[in-house]
Amino acid sequence: MSLRQDAHTIIQNALQSAQPDTAVRNAFANIDLSKHNRVLLLAIGKAAWQMARAALTMLGDRLEQGIVITKYGHGRGDLPRTQVFEAGHPVPDKAGIEASQAALDMVDGLQADDAVLFLVSGGGSALFEQSLVSLEELMDLTGQMLRAGCDIVEMNTIRKRLSRVKGGRFAQACLPATVFAIILSDIISDPLDMIASGPAAPDTTTCEEALAIARRLDLKLSSQAQAALMEETPKDLPNVHSFITGSVTQLCLSAARTAKELGYEPTILTASLRCEAREAGSFLASIAAYHQDSKKSLAFLCGGETVVHVKGDGKGGRNQEIALSAALALDGLADTCLFSIGSDGTDGPTDAAGGIVDGHTARKLRQKGIDLRRTLDDNDAYHALLAVEGLIITGPTGTNVNDLSVLLIKREAESG
Amino acid sequence: MSLRQDAHTIIQNALQSAQPDTAVRNAFANIDLSKHNRVLLLAIGKAAWQMARAALTMLGDRLEQGIVITKYGHGRGDLPRTQVFEAGHPVPDKAGIEASQAALDMVDGLQADDAVLFLVSGGGSALFEQSLVSLEELMDLTGQMLRAGCDIVEMNTIRKRLSRVKGGRFAQACLPATVFAIILSDIISDPLDMIASGPAAPDTTTCEEALAIARRLDLKLSSQAQAALMEETPKDLPNVHSFITGSVTQLCLSAARTAKELGYEPTILTASLRCEAREAGSFLASIAAYHQDSKKSLAFLCGGETVVHVKGDGKGGRNQEIALSAALALDGLADTCLFSIGSDGTDGPTDAAGGIVDGHTARKLRQKGIDLRRTLDDNDAYHALLAVEGLIITGPTGTNVNDLSVLLIKREAESG
Repeated sequence: MSLRQDAHTIIQNALQSAQPDTAVRNAFANIDLSKHNRVLLLAIGKAAWQMARAALTMLGDRLEQGIVITKYGHGRGDLPRTQVFEAGHPVPDKAGIEASQAALDMVDGLQADDAVLFLVSGGGSALFEQSLVSLEELMDLTGQMLRAGCDIVEMNTIRKRLSRVKGGRFAQACLPATVFAIILSDIISDPLDMIASGPAAPDTTTCEEALAIARRLDLKLSSQAQAALMEETPKDLPNVHSFITGSVTQLCLSAARTAKELGYEPTILTASLRCEAREAGSFLASIAAYHQDSKKSLAFLCGGETVVHVKGDGKGGRNQEIALSAALALDGLADTCLFSIGSDGTDGPTDAAGGIVDGHTARKLRQKGIDLRRTLDDNDAYHALLAVEGLIITGPTGTNVNDLSVLLIKREAESG
Repeated sequence: MSLRQDAHTIIQNALQSAQPDTAVRNAFANIDLSKHNRVLLLAIGKAAWQMARAALTMLGDRLEQGIVITKYGHGRGDLPRTQVFEAGHPVPDKAGIEASQAALDMVDGLQADDAVLFLVSGGGSALFEQSLVSLEELMDLTGQMLRAGCDIVEMNTIRKRLSRVKGGRFAQACLPATVFAIILSDIISDPLDMIASGPAAPDTTTCEEALAIARRLDLKLSSQAQAALMEETPKDLPNVHSFITGSVTQLCLSAARTAKELGYEPTILTASLRCEAREAGSFLASIAAYHQDSKKSLAFLCGGETVVHVKGDGKGGRNQEIALSAALALDGLADTCLFSIGSDGTDGPTDAAGGIVDGHTARKLRQKGIDLRRTLDDNDAYHALLAVEGLIITGPTGTNVNDLSVLLIKREAESG
C-alpha cells in the first residue's frame, strides 16, 4: 500500500511541476519588461489558456492586448484585455485561421521597443495557422500525411513552408519588436523549431528536405503549394529570446526529486524514450529483477513518448501497455512497482492517464483468467488493468509534456 | 578509436571470465573431495569437453572414471580416464541415448562416501537423455513442440517427465553418493531445474503443469508417454551441492569490473533482458542522449537474451539488431558507443558475435545510401554493420552464457 502511496505522491508532484502556471512563473523570472513600451501577448496550444492566465497574473496592467488560440473546449472563460479563440485540432479549421489573422494584425507595425510575449504549448501547430494555400488543400495535405504515417518532424517540415506563421515567420512578422517565447514542450528532446512548428524559432529544416518528403509520400500538391515548398524559412532571428519551461526532462527531474524525498535513490535513465511501449515495459521491469537484493530503495525513471503498433482491437494506451507488459517480469517480486502515465492525463482513447503494476499483478490476472500476453496482443491493456486496480485516473491535467515511466523498489531503511 | 579499444578490452575480459575453464576453476575452490572415496565425472553440454579438461587438470589421479557427452564437433581430443561421446543437438539421437546409458551405468551402485562431479553446460538437455519413450516418439514430440513455438521452460517441463535422467532423476540415480554439480548457465535468471532440464536439481515443475501444456499444444502422445507425464519428479535432493559458475550475471559483473578499471562508472541495469532486440537497442541508446552532459565516463550494462521476430529475409542476429537500432538514437553524439555480443561468439546465422555502433554510424550509413529503418525491417543488420566497420567477430568463444549489451559514454578526466 505504501508503495502505491509513494507512486501517487510522485505523480501528483511531477504533474504539478509541469503545470503551465508553474512553467510560466518560472520563465518570468528571466524576463525583464521594464525597458519595453507596448507589451502584447499571444498564447497558442492546448495549454494556451492556462499559460495566458499565469502570465496575466504577473503582467497586470502592463499588458496592452492579448490573444489566446486553443483547442475547442480548452478555453476556461474570459481573461482581461485578451480575446480567447477556440479552433480545430489536430486538423486546422477556419476558426484557427481567423484567430491567427487576428494575431498577425495585432503584431503589425510594432516598434523596436515593443515586446511580444509568445506562449507556446502542444497542439499549436494546428491551431496557429495562416496558410499560403487554401484551407481545403491544407486539410487535405494534413490528412494525406497522417494517413501515410508521417512523424511529427516530417509533418512540420512540410507545414512550415505552407504557412505565414510557422518556421520562424511569426517572429519575423513581429520585427523589429522583441519576442519572448515561453515554451511548454511536448516533443521529446526539445527541438525548438519543431514545437508548434516553431513560429518563433530559426528553422533548421530546408526546402530540399521538404521536397524530398513530398516526393517520397507522393503528395498531391497545387501549384501554389509547390511554390511555397521552395520558399526558404528564416535561419536567424536575433529578436527572439526563448525559454523552455515545461518539458519531459523537467517532469523526470521533478519525479526524481520527489522520489528522493521519499527515500529512494533516483536514476533518470532517459528523457527520450521512443521504443515500442510493451518492449519498454519489459526492459524497465527487467531492471527490477536485477536490483532485488539492493539494500537501498531505488527509483528508475524514464521520460519520452513510446509507440504502439496496434494489431488488436482492444482498448488501451501506450502507458497502459508499458505497465501491463512490465507485470510479467515483476511477477513475484516483493515491494516493487512500476507505473507509467501520460502527463496530459489521457492515454490512448481511454479515461485513464496510465497504469500501475506490482509483483502481485500477474498472479491477480491469472486468478481472474486473464492471459497477459494475449491481452497485450489484443492491445487491450485497459480492461486487464481495470480488473486488478491497475489504472491511474487523473482526469485532464491541464498540461502536456509527454510520458513518465517509473520503477520503484522499496526497501526498509536499516535501523541505526 | 580509444572508445572502440575500451569496448574491445571489455569484451575480451568478459568472455575470458565466462570461459568454462575459468568457471570450473572458480567452483573447485568450494569443493572438498578429501573425505570422498571414489570420484567420478560426468560432463554434459556444448562446453562439456572444456569443463571436463579444466576439472581433470585439478583432479589429476583422484578421478577414477569420466564421461563427456557433447555436441558433434565439440569434442577436442582424448582426455585421461575419460570417454568422450558426441551426440545430436538440438534433436536428441541414438548416440546421446547410448552415452547417457554409459553414464547411468557408471553411477550404478555408488556408496555414500563416493562423489560425482557433474559438469553442466547449455545443450545438455538434448545431449543427456535416457528416454521413457521410444527415441522416435521423443524426436517426434520435440519436433511438435519446436513447431508449436514452445519456450524452453515449456519444453523442459514435458521432457523432464519423459526421461530417466532429467528433473533431478540423475542425482537420484547417484544416491547415496554426493553430487557436486558445477553449472555454466545459459538460461537467464539461472533457474537450476531448467538448465539442461536439471538432472541434479529438485524439480519445481509439476505433473499438472506438464499435462496442461500437453493439452494446450494438443500433443500426440503414446500411452507410455501419457503415463510418464503423470509420474512426479524428485522435489528434494539432499545429496546435491550446486555451483553456478558461469552465468550472464557474472558476464555483466566482469564487464562492469573492466569498465571501472578503464575509468567508467558502471551501472548494471539488468541481467534478464528479454524484450525485442531492436527495441532494446532503442531504449539503451536513449539513455545515452540523457547523459551527454555527464562530467564522468559512464557505462550502462545489460545481460540477457533478447528476441527477434523475423519479418524480412536479410541476415543478422539479435545482437546486431540491438547495435544497429541504437545507431539511430546515438546519431551525432560525441564519444559514445554501444555494443552487443553473444557470448558464444555467434549471433544468428552469421559469422559475427554482434555489433558495435557510435555517434558516426548513422551518418556513415546515410553516406553509403543504406536506410537504417528499412534495413531493420529486412532483418539485415549484418550487411549494414559490415559496411560501416560495425561487426564484432570473435570466432567461437568456447562458452555460452547469453548476451551482453553495453553503452559507453567517455568523457575526458578533469585535469587536476
